[in-house]
Amino acid sequence: MKIAISGKGGVGKTLLASLLSKTFAEAGYSVLAVDADPDANLAANLGFPHPEEITPISELSNLIEERTGARPGQSAPFFKLNPKVDDLPENYSVKHDGIKLVVRGGIKGGGTGCYCPEGALLQALLSHLLLQRDEVVILDMEAGIEHLARGTAKAVNKLIVVVEPGRRSIETAYRIHKLAQDIGLENIAVVGNKIRSQSEREFLITNLPDLEFLGFIPYDQALVDADLANLPLLDSSQQIVAAVKNIYQSLVCTARVPSIVN
Amino acid sequence: MKIAISGKGGVGKTLLASLLSKTFAEAGYSVLAVDADPDANLAANLGFPHPEEITPISELSNLIEERTGARPGQSAPFFKLNPKVDDLPENYSVKHDGIKLVVRGGIKGGGTGCYCPEGALLQALLSHLLLQRDEVVILDMEAGIEHLARGTAKAVNKLIVVVEPGRRSIETAYRIHKLAQDIGLENIAVVGNKIRSQSEREFLITNLPDLEFLGFIPYDQALVDADLANLPLLDSSQQIVAAVKNIYQSLVCTARVPSIVN
Repeated sequence: MKIAISGKGGVGKTLLASLLSKTFAEAGYSVLAVDADPDANLAANLGFPHPEEITPISELSNLIEERTGARPGQSAPFFKLNPKVDDLPENYSVKHDGIKLVVRGGIKGGGTGCYCPEGALLQALLSHLLLQRDEVVILDMEAGIEHLARGTAKAVNKLIVVVEPGRRSIETAYRIHKLAQDIGLENIAVVGNKIRSQSEREFLITNLPDLEFLGFIPYDQALVDADLANLPLLDSSQQIVAAVKNIYQSLVCTARVPSIVN
Repeated sequence: MKIAISGKGGVGKTLLASLLSKTFAEAGYSVLAVDADPDANLAANLGFPHPEEITPISELSNLIEERTGARPGQSAPFFKLNPKVDDLPENYSVKHDGIKLVVRGGIKGGGTGCYCPEGALLQALLSHLLLQRDEVVILDMEAGIEHLARGTAKAVNKLIVVVEPGRRSIETAYRIHKLAQDIGLENIAVVGNKIRSQSEREFLITNLPDLEFLGFIPYDQALVDADLANLPLLDSSQQIVAAVKNIYQSLVCTARVPSIVN
């Protein structure tokens, strides 16, 4: 099962990614979580000790040079477009509470069309994770899903777009939906987060009539308070945990993942 | 006066950019607002009619080809690194309520080091806006500020990092602060947004001891309700407007902008 999570900044992608990872792991699945959003911190959310000490793969210059033949940041005329990456999930991941985490990291600056060594490595890694791993892979992505190319998009069992009651997050959901259609990704669904009332729930349903809703996560001040007090987030709200368990159930049932044999 | 606004996704960068633009315009300044965050919608926040019909500069393929000599998306071996851009603010901006808006747009996919035609044009445009315009320029940016290069960073009078009461937005603020130091940008300050209580305000001050606070914007349900009801945001909360006016005052006073002669 491959799950990609996207949405506007601040809607709660990382919260959903971490709670889903935990729920799958507790159910006995082998889980590989991927932090693909340079502005997120999936490691901290998952309760990894010293998350700031995990070096993102995009910053491993020696590794990038070894695999692609060119150093990041240098405008090399030639480098391997299909570098070897199948050992990276084992050798460059960290593990905690049964969840394996790969921190992908970002690429500095803007520019594409032209391709660069670190881009080639990260793209190859993403393809590998989506096409060749038999674990549950959970990708915490940016709002832009352009990193999913045509070939790999088909392997995504579900692209979850997180929205909150607010017009801007709806606009971003539309933009993501359009991008997904462009790359042939049809398994898209929405999760509404920070829901305070029935009318906020209805606002989201009314404004996203073409998309399937996988579930809703309530707003809970307990989560905010735990964050401010620097307490673990994942156990801070029973309501939120219960809501994510329902979302997990929908995912497992609709995606027809084989059940685990313990 | 050149103001760049950054911070974690969802903290309220676009709200601050739009209210500051409005406040400067009402005070008689000539304002050029720049939407440099592909996941934001500054035009909608500023109340522009039909914001979805404004084509971002990054998508004007013919313009990019005309100016750089290469078409976007093509890996051209040669193109102009310093294309002409000084006419773009006049010819490719839209105007509403006295505010001129340039929608920069984003670059698809990831990759840099290698440079591409659209990147060259957008970079040249940013330099032009920061170094050669005599208006108040307000940049609504992404959390990544890597687009500000060494040469242009000096021209920024104030880089405002918006934070909200939450650990993740603080982490992003630290990351931005470090990036800013790397490029020699020293005029950095913080605005706390969505403040519900004195303790939330203190949480931010305690956790960002090294940064100057320009001001605080309260959380106001009236803004959320206006958004859900699709009403204009800029007038929806007197409290928020008043808080942004204070921030404007600090900016004008600390940056020693010449006063306007009407």
